[in-house]
Amino acid sequence: MIIGVLGGGQLGRMLALAGYPLGFEFVFLDHAADAPAGQLAPLLCGEFTDETRLTELAERADVITFDWENVPLETARFLARRGRVRPPLAALAAAQDRVSEKRLFERLRIPTTRWRAVHTQADLARALAEIGLPGVLKTRHLGYDGKGQASVRSVADAERAWERLGGVPLMYEEHVDFDFEVSIIGVRARDGRTALYPLSLNMHAAGMLRLTRAPYGSQRLQRLAGQYLRRMLAHFRYVGVLTIEFFVRTGRLIANEIAPRVHNSGHWTIEGADTSQFENHLRAIGGLPLGSTRARGHSAMINLIGSLPPRAALLAYPDLHLHEYGKRPRPGRKLGHCTLVAASAHARDTRARRLLAELAPEIRIP
Amino acid sequence: MIIGVLGGGQLGRMLALAGYPLGFEFVFLDHAADAPAGQLAPLLCGEFTDETRLTELAERADVITFDWENVPLETARFLARRGRVRPPLAALAAAQDRVSEKRLFERLRIPTTRWRAVHTQADLARALAEIGLPGVLKTRHLGYDGKGQASVRSVADAERAWERLGGVPLMYEEHVDFDFEVSIIGVRARDGRTALYPLSLNMHAAGMLRLTRAPYGSQRLQRLAGQYLRRMLAHFRYVGVLTIEFFVRTGRLIANEIAPRVHNSGHWTIEGADTSQFENHLRAIGGLPLGSTRARGHSAMINLIGSLPPRAALLAYPDLHLHEYGKRPRPGRKLGHCTLVAASAHARDTRARRLLAELAPEIRIP
Repeated sequence: MIIGVLGGGQLGRMLALAGYPLGFEFVFLDHAADAPAGQLAPLLCGEFTDETRLTELAERADVITFDWENVPLETARFLARRGRVRPPLAALAAAQDRVSEKRLFERLRIPTTRWRAVHTQADLARALAEIGLPGVLKTRHLGYDGKGQASVRSVADAERAWERLGGVPLMYEEHVDFDFEVSIIGVRARDGRTALYPLSLNMHAAGMLRLTRAPYGSQRLQRLAGQYLRRMLAHFRYVGVLTIEFFVRTGRLIANEIAPRVHNSGHWTIEGADTSQFENHLRAIGGLPLGSTRARGHSAMINLIGSLPPRAALLAYPDLHLHEYGKRPRPGRKLGHCTLVAASAHARDTRARRLLAELAPEIRIP
Repeated sequence: MIIGVLGGGQLGRMLALAGYPLGFEFVFLDHAADAPAGQLAPLLCGEFTDETRLTELAERADVITFDWENVPLETARFLARRGRVRPPLAALAAAQDRVSEKRLFERLRIPTTRWRAVHTQADLARALAEIGLPGVLKTRHLGYDGKGQASVRSVADAERAWERLGGVPLMYEEHVDFDFEVSIIGVRARDGRTALYPLSLNMHAAGMLRLTRAPYGSQRLQRLAGQYLRRMLAHFRYVGVLTIEFFVRTGRLIANEIAPRVHNSGHWTIEGADTSQFENHLRAIGGLPLGSTRARGHSAMINLIGSLPPRAALLAYPDLHLHEYGKRPRPGRKLGHCTLVAASAHARDTRARRLLAELAPEIRIP
């Protein structure tokens, strides 16, 4: 079976690495000739609007998936008329529009932040009055890794944010003074069976994920997040891996966003779970039984951003697992990650602290 | 760093899968255009005697290794004049000639079988007289997976074996009525540091490995095998992964053969050890620190030979790890393997028995 993938970034690359042992083959479509997945699979080079390339992808692939949730819907529809696209387009559509996403959370009774759609400056003034300060002004579309959003702590902030972001559909939402952030990753097979990974505890800096630790120990939050994710998977009759990110404040989950794909906060599953999120996504979209999502030990995953430390220095940590993405260094670019797996949460945190001091001193494990 | 690999079989393929996350790139040379590694890395198609292709490989690669120990020595020497070849040629030479291999065992005081070189029928008669019956007549060169050898239980057998194998240099060795077989896999870095994996317990059928279980529990045998392997690694000032296979009879180790490469009995290390044999081979030849060789749980690896069972049936075992090699089915061909990892040796064996009943009923775990 040949898997066609829209997007040849690190997520696509890790899908291919997980899929070859299952007997899958791959073909990628990406606008960049040096996309990370191109080192290890055929890469069609073209824009996602290039119908010739899309047709070629559909003809070569038995099933099509994506490693990026901002694939234009028109592209996904074009492909869905020519082959099987998984996960479903409706999930892609919801993830691409913060307003649809919020409505979906509300419809599925998943607690989320208070929010207002903002099209005009008058809308913004009304939203500020109704939701209050502080808050965040976000573009409805094309936001990721903290891009397309601005903090609003004052009316003056709101004006500056409007000047920076205005002109496209926006959304204003309350700022959540959260205690910490978690994400839950799950997978649903074609036959409706689902499997959920343990909760991941995430720490960000400058809008980007820097550290994930898993499993996060609260059984209560795990159960609650699991209920929400199952509801979402069932709603879409989803096939593949889906992620929900939550803020946690005083023991309550507040849904932040969904990602209809494998997720950065699930990279620890490569070594830290019986079956990785990448393998389970492929099993699901390929019509195979799902693999066990049980954690193997206690994992910490640290993103390598902007530049890569010397490989020999990193690998001198004897049980560190390095994942380079084959990307050229650039400030703010995710170039790789590394994962530690330990026998206890305490041992993991001790080791992760040492590593963070070198790799991401702005992140402190309390 | 680009790794050039002579041979694009499943071992090469698994090297590439282990190496991409470390940031390595690959180029393979194989005579078969559909070699398994070719699905996921550039493949130069040519014979190992094709100097144009060899030159191209040497020019493209920063370091050259092999996934097959019967690479012609002339080829290895040709490449060594144009670049770095690892492991060392002397180890390749020893592994290619059963007589050199036996002499090496003796020189390093590693117990092995009694043996005689056989060039003529008179040599064979003398060997039979001195070593006795039963025994095995083997070609000195190009033997693997039980090929190039014949059991000798009578003088009539010896005559038939001579007719079948004679005409090339041979070796006669005593038949060892062993209790079981083990192998030890270790790795030596450029700076001389070594790391050893736990002993693997191997079961064969029709000359081919069918089942490996690890770690094998005897601390005494582990220590002894480890001493022998370290001696061998030091002797060659070896760089990379090296394997020694042993017969075990009444608690004693009797060396059978060496393999100067990653080994089928080490496939369990992909999921069952902190760092796989493939990754450690690459770390060693790439000049990086070695990774931990500690076992994670108790593993069983079963080879899939001749035909592949339906993927969905295999993956219905929730914690089974499947590795297909992308090869066309053919009787007696290794097409893949699968690995189970359990929390105890008992749980592993229980599960492995169930799987063996389907996949390799000729193998019985006592």
